[in-house]
Amino acid sequence: MPKYLAKVKVMLKKGILDVQGKTVENSLRTLGFDTISNIRIGKYITFEIEAESLEKANYVANTATDKLLYNPNIETYSYEVDEILEEK
Amino acid sequence: MPKYLAKVKVMLKKGILDVQGKTVENSLRTLGFDTISNIRIGKYITFEIEAESLEKANYVANTATDKLLYNPNIETYSYEVDEILEEK
Repeated sequence: MPKYLAKVKVMLKKGILDVQGKTVENSLRTLGFDTISNIRIGKYITFEIEAESLEKANYVANTATDKLLYNPNIETYSYEVDEILEEK
Repeated sequence: MPKYLAKVKVMLKKGILDVQGKTVENSLRTLGFDTISNIRIGKYITFEIEAESLEKANYVANTATDKLLYNPNIETYSYEVDEILEEK
């Protein structure tokens, strides 16, 4: 069966304070990076899916993310799925 | 001065066991997602940079990531920088 690679980005919603990002921003300023602002730190999740078609793989990626990988109260996500063409 | 958006992906190196990913994989299997494998969970970091040119913004993104955002012992990173063309 074909294999697909799903790549999911999970970020805090715009209105939510990103405490980790703020902390890193302060550290960067201390190091002299004073042109950097608005740091947001999210998650980047990759996984492989065995599926009959890209559509089914997309469905699995979407459902899995929805059920487990993000917190709908404070986060949003986007994802893409591509066929893995050659074996490693 | 032009503004740029940096997007940095930080992932564990291939040889490093991704404990968090393994845990999520087990949970997904419990939920019935048995076609998913090889979950890797990394960080997705975005920030804005004020710089005179794309080259300078790239330099700042690279240096900042190198100095603070990743752990060279166990992680690798990739990044891209694009000009922010319109104000929000």
